[in-house]
Amino acid sequence: MDNNKTFFRTRTCGELRMEHVGEAVTLAGFLENFREVGATLGFAVLRDFYGTTQVVCESEELVKTFKTLNKESTVQVSGTVRERDSKNPKLPTGDIEVVPAKIEVLGRCRHNELPFPVNRSREADESQRLKFRYLDLRNPEVKDNIVLRCQVVSALRQAMTGHGFMEITTPILTASSPEGARDYLVPSRKHPGKFYALPQAPQQFKQLLMASGFDKYFQIAPCFRDEDARGDRSPGEFYQLDMEMAFAGQEDVFAVLEDVLPPIFAKYGKYGAASSAPFQRISFLDAMETYGSDKPDLRIRLKLQDATAVLAGCGFAPFEGQTVKAVCVPGFAATRKQIDKLCADVEVQAGQKVYWFRLDENGEIVGGIAKFLQECKGQVVEALGLQPNTFVGLTAGKKLTAQKTGGVLIKQLAPLCPGHFDKERYEFCWIVDFPMYEIGEESGELEFCHNPFSMPNGGAEILKKAAAGEVDPLSITAFQYDLVCNGVELSSGAVRNHDPEIMIEAFQLVRLGEEDVKAKFPAMYNAFTYGAPPHAGIAPGVDRMVMLLAGEDSIREIIPFPMNKNAQDLMMGAPGIVEQRQLDELNIMCTKTGDEV
Amino acid sequence: MDNNKTFFRTRTCGELRMEHVGEAVTLAGFLENFREVGATLGFAVLRDFYGTTQVVCESEELVKTFKTLNKESTVQVSGTVRERDSKNPKLPTGDIEVVPAKIEVLGRCRHNELPFPVNRSREADESQRLKFRYLDLRNPEVKDNIVLRCQVVSALRQAMTGHGFMEITTPILTASSPEGARDYLVPSRKHPGKFYALPQAPQQFKQLLMASGFDKYFQIAPCFRDEDARGDRSPGEFYQLDMEMAFAGQEDVFAVLEDVLPPIFAKYGKYGAASSAPFQRISFLDAMETYGSDKPDLRIRLKLQDATAVLAGCGFAPFEGQTVKAVCVPGFAATRKQIDKLCADVEVQAGQKVYWFRLDENGEIVGGIAKFLQECKGQVVEALGLQPNTFVGLTAGKKLTAQKTGGVLIKQLAPLCPGHFDKERYEFCWIVDFPMYEIGEESGELEFCHNPFSMPNGGAEILKKAAAGEVDPLSITAFQYDLVCNGVELSSGAVRNHDPEIMIEAFQLVRLGEEDVKAKFPAMYNAFTYGAPPHAGIAPGVDRMVMLLAGEDSIREIIPFPMNKNAQDLMMGAPGIVEQRQLDELNIMCTKTGDEV
Repeated sequence: MDNNKTFFRTRTCGELRMEHVGEAVTLAGFLENFREVGATLGFAVLRDFYGTTQVVCESEELVKTFKTLNKESTVQVSGTVRERDSKNPKLPTGDIEVVPAKIEVLGRCRHNELPFPVNRSREADESQRLKFRYLDLRNPEVKDNIVLRCQVVSALRQAMTGHGFMEITTPILTASSPEGARDYLVPSRKHPGKFYALPQAPQQFKQLLMASGFDKYFQIAPCFRDEDARGDRSPGEFYQLDMEMAFAGQEDVFAVLEDVLPPIFAKYGKYGAASSAPFQRISFLDAMETYGSDKPDLRIRLKLQDATAVLAGCGFAPFEGQTVKAVCVPGFAATRKQIDKLCADVEVQAGQKVYWFRLDENGEIVGGIAKFLQECKGQVVEALGLQPNTFVGLTAGKKLTAQKTGGVLIKQLAPLCPGHFDKERYEFCWIVDFPMYEIGEESGELEFCHNPFSMPNGGAEILKKAAAGEVDPLSITAFQYDLVCNGVELSSGAVRNHDPEIMIEAFQLVRLGEEDVKAKFPAMYNAFTYGAPPHAGIAPGVDRMVMLLAGEDSIREIIPFPMNKNAQDLMMGAPGIVEQRQLDELNIMCTKTGDEV
Repeated sequence: MDNNKTFFRTRTCGELRMEHVGEAVTLAGFLENFREVGATLGFAVLRDFYGTTQVVCESEELVKTFKTLNKESTVQVSGTVRERDSKNPKLPTGDIEVVPAKIEVLGRCRHNELPFPVNRSREADESQRLKFRYLDLRNPEVKDNIVLRCQVVSALRQAMTGHGFMEITTPILTASSPEGARDYLVPSRKHPGKFYALPQAPQQFKQLLMASGFDKYFQIAPCFRDEDARGDRSPGEFYQLDMEMAFAGQEDVFAVLEDVLPPIFAKYGKYGAASSAPFQRISFLDAMETYGSDKPDLRIRLKLQDATAVLAGCGFAPFEGQTVKAVCVPGFAATRKQIDKLCADVEVQAGQKVYWFRLDENGEIVGGIAKFLQECKGQVVEALGLQPNTFVGLTAGKKLTAQKTGGVLIKQLAPLCPGHFDKERYEFCWIVDFPMYEIGEESGELEFCHNPFSMPNGGAEILKKAAAGEVDPLSITAFQYDLVCNGVELSSGAVRNHDPEIMIEAFQLVRLGEEDVKAKFPAMYNAFTYGAPPHAGIAPGVDRMVMLLAGEDSIREIIPFPMNKNAQDLMMGAPGIVEQRQLDELNIMCTKTGDEV
């Protein structure tokens, strides 16, 4: 074997077709399987990154060679392409097989038994999969998700570059930041007692880039948060399509993503269709009123209707003095059992009861709370615009409670009414006009609602009016927006407050001053005092997007080498014990060792 | 100001030409300068990412507005494009100016005085530049290096993708590795006493990807080494164009980079020309013998000649019993003063004396050590093939010393003999056939020379022969290679040893066993026991490549937000003191605080 030469293969295992019959080829790959038919006949399957090819063994020697070789060994096969007698139409290379003249073992698998069968690794215990991730990834189904991820990231980069954005990498070793999630810390060797932190997001750096005169920035940015795992959040690191634009506002950001995302979602996604520009813009208050959620799934064509006026006085106790919301589903065909399950599921998820009735094919109100509605039947039918054969789900409580329960009801109803649920597509929307302030539940005083550093709609002027009592601060909205796809929030973004004077006004309304502004992000605040362009941005989560496209529920399926839920890399043994010498150099010691806390 | 709308500009500051004269435009940018000519005449320069545009003020009100505005404020100007009376041919927009109808201040610079003038920031103290990096980056010269970096990285990505490589991101929170440089550690909150480490390179992961069945991997990979700074090494993080190929050998890797790098170097580099494929391959021993360096600068057309036979007995004491190397420079025109300086410079750098003589226009040996050579003049002229008017530099010592001093001499000679130095281009070469083993200076026994995990040329067979005493282990070479450009080593790479059996053979020759192999990289070793493809790769340093292309000597000039030499980010205040609560959560304490060690 001469490693100096390019001779390992002339073709890949995914490449050969009828047109190659008769060609002398060399393939190299993993021995996926060997099926012995007799002493002088057997079929081997060779697998590489690109596919599989059947190798037919027609001599005792070849059969013996393959028989004695453990599966998953790497092998080089030189031979001739031949048309198959019995073709396999399911396989791209199913028309042909290779008749080997020479076989060389390139890398022997020493193990007779594998921890799990490669092609059925998804059925194996997750800890085994993660420990032997290199075997798990040989499973084409598992690999395909990683390939998808890489293709999507590459397509995002290309699209952003095509829109005039420049990818700039920002520091990974940086300063701890007082807000947000928990930082990962890195002790400094040269500065005892001091620590770097890994960035939770490049938020400050991208805004500093704007203050530095850069214009259209993006980055497939690694972000680090020391938070516990969730289904859609890996512990440790995750990636954002981070972007920011100078001399730009909300609509500029929208225009870019409306252009960039739909073609990528339609091309790479499990579903082949996506919203086209412009995405629907829904104000936060409208979203709550219409969909009972600030993450509406627009594939579901069901909306909340207000039924307070018509139902609050019907005599059904749970409605009395409450806001009542209705979801009407014409042509609903679910069974009583399904309805009961629906109500139970919503109650589990929302912590609130849901009620219902049906207008049957004869126009009679039946089922659920029907008996309370017989007297006001005419009004109900008219107020809700009911047609025969309509299911009506009802929620009640304080306004927000009734809305939110209604939102859960809509999402639970979707699978039961395929006529109102166009599942096989990606539906985007923007949620806009988030309130800038709210009354704090604990404090009872005015507080920031979301991000204090977003630009208030109306700028300094409206803040001054609010300070003077001329405007209700609760009516001020921020230029802050969420990108939602199929009910999943992909990102929050904002027009940033780039003006120290407006920042101070905004903080004064919640009884804070310049020092508080400065304390949060000193570098950014200082930069803004040297003149900064108005700027806006967003940072859709790459992992969440890929999950949506792959149709996977676990984030670990779309990460090449994921940590487990316990923040461990079982394959590499991270985190691990380090040498005392290393800790000494860093001037730190452990105050506790041992098991997980 | 309505941040909801896209109205900040209709054109950029780099865009307007004669063809736009008469157009109504809105520009937005930083106020670079305002020159007041009189009460009703002044010229403002507006700068954005794309260029600068002159704004002419012809009313008292406009002059006053600009006069009272601090430089570097951001401004929006709406007006009309007009042809300039006196054009500025140096400026892309020098044919026109904008006559404003309306001006709006977007972001006021609060400071009358800047820490340094933006357009001359490179002359400022470096610590000021780094602290106010957002002002430093507004200097187009400084910005251009960052833009270059981004363009080069983007071009590398595109070229690698075009060659069928897939970019796969590998974990940043991983395990500490026993070898190499110092790791940055990250305490684990959930596993007291345990630590993650930031990867020094994704070496293990990329090899694990190969064992996982991926085929052509690359990554613009962040790497982390807790080492002190050097001119070409930033403390903390740096980036590699990391790549690896399965079922591939040395020539496969060479072919990719020979295709990828030259067009990018020629397009983006300070010099517009680069080697074409194939790059010269020079064995390590030949490189030392011919260029006195394993990082030869092939732009210099000077080589070492062996002068041991002809000069060791000439009676000049320093040559006696030594290896003597000569560098001959026909047509050399340097002055005596330059020669003296040359000899002094080489001595400082190499720690060895350098000697010289000249064959003058009459064919006489003159200067330097001429008096020792008069007797053997004929032999010297013949042995070195000297023509009149040739300078001969000489080094002496043990073979390696004479070679290395000669290598320093060649590099120092280059600027003195432009006829032998084709400076304005990028000359690549591969250094190959590095010895696998050497006799350790301290141990006096056989040791690995470079990387124990590279594939020996000859595989298991040659190792077995060496073990049996049939082959000198010192004659075994590894499939290891360096990529060198203009005398700068861009990267080492290798065909990896993917076979546990060959690994054990290789280790046994230096008196180590399987346990030692396993201890170094357990995950990788385990993976290889499950069958692995032969694979090879390399990882050229992105920062070094960009430095070469930009022609910068300090690595901080090509990093957006660099740390200083002391591993501090002066702008962000990293590393910094963190809250006790954070350390408590991580179960660590500091054993020392205070000043730098």
